[in-house]
Amino acid sequence: MKIGILGSGMVGQTIAAKLAEIGQEVMLGTRSPEKLQDWLAKNPHVKLGSVSETAAFGEVVFNATKGDAALEVVKTAGAKNLAGKILVDISNPLDFSNGMPPTLFVSNTDSLGEQIQRALPDCKVIKALNTLTASLMVNPRALADGEHTLFICGNDAEAKAVLTRLLTEWFGWRDILDLGDITSARATEALLPIWIRMYMKFGTGQIQFKIVR
Amino acid sequence: MKIGILGSGMVGQTIAAKLAEIGQEVMLGTRSPEKLQDWLAKNPHVKLGSVSETAAFGEVVFNATKGDAALEVVKTAGAKNLAGKILVDISNPLDFSNGMPPTLFVSNTDSLGEQIQRALPDCKVIKALNTLTASLMVNPRALADGEHTLFICGNDAEAKAVLTRLLTEWFGWRDILDLGDITSARATEALLPIWIRMYMKFGTGQIQFKIVR
Repeated sequence: MKIGILGSGMVGQTIAAKLAEIGQEVMLGTRSPEKLQDWLAKNPHVKLGSVSETAAFGEVVFNATKGDAALEVVKTAGAKNLAGKILVDISNPLDFSNGMPPTLFVSNTDSLGEQIQRALPDCKVIKALNTLTASLMVNPRALADGEHTLFICGNDAEAKAVLTRLLTEWFGWRDILDLGDITSARATEALLPIWIRMYMKFGTGQIQFKIVR
Repeated sequence: MKIGILGSGMVGQTIAAKLAEIGQEVMLGTRSPEKLQDWLAKNPHVKLGSVSETAAFGEVVFNATKGDAALEVVKTAGAKNLAGKILVDISNPLDFSNGMPPTLFVSNTDSLGEQIQRALPDCKVIKALNTLTASLMVNPRALADGEHTLFICGNDAEAKAVLTRLLTEWFGWRDILDLGDITSARATEALLPIWIRMYMKFGTGQIQFKIVR
């Protein structure tokens, strides 16, 4: 499958490397290709593209940008290039301007996931993978043999079923919990404050939520 | 031990009944004693008192009021009556005025736990038990044999150590996670939006967070 990944930081690199490793066709969209030459030498099967080329290339697209750039990047990616496609939104509205821990620049009555869905009305935005560290996104079984929970939400039930199948096949997820429509992004983005406090306490990102039920 | 419980709804009743059952001296503080006569007939070892009598009575006090009444009730309880004591704050700043799911009337850069600590500067406010249903607060082993997480936070390390011991002895908690000072109440109160969405999805409150690490 052709996968586009917007954002070439740790999250974008980790997902790109894993998907290329399992034989998917991956394009990483970046505004700074010059910074990726070393990484690209180790991941020769990943193509680099502009943000809009990457959006046009992917059958499924990941938004792995930083929260404060996310809306601008998806607009640059182009509503037309993303129309009808699944956009997996991993971004979080973190505001580090007052130090650690960060606050959220949108919360409670709105979310970054909803803002992105409103900016791309014909795209199937699914909020997912935003509540855990990159290495666990693509290898959940590295922690407690995968006995923890991935939250997803979005307005298109069929798209969520497709993504659930893909994340299970690609990465080995065992417990994917559909919270409902994209307004549930308010609830999963709101997990970041506690996640970051635990990250600071334990000094590791190898922590995850499991919903016991 | 003498325990005061502010608020006589489901949470206050559940904690009062359990603590009386295990032999603690319990006073339930309420503004509506007439509504509790049937319940009291079944729980004859629980005393009723006014809010301020209950605060004065308890060596440890629970705030089990509804969020929108919490600040008013703890002020009525009296800063002097609560000085030097542990106040376990279970309240959540839920705003149901726009229907379900509720939003939070304080969040992100402040919390109800912090507001209560500011109103009672000489009291040791510990935010705890606010992220799960009443029956599991006092009987965590009823779900997954207790393999899930209780979050606590507050400014006084010794008070948190005392409360951790008490909750373990009284209720059988196995995994109590100290998140730090009372500002972490922002992070645990922020779990309510996802908890309520899961409650609506599953149709039961028998759900809990476990932090896998």
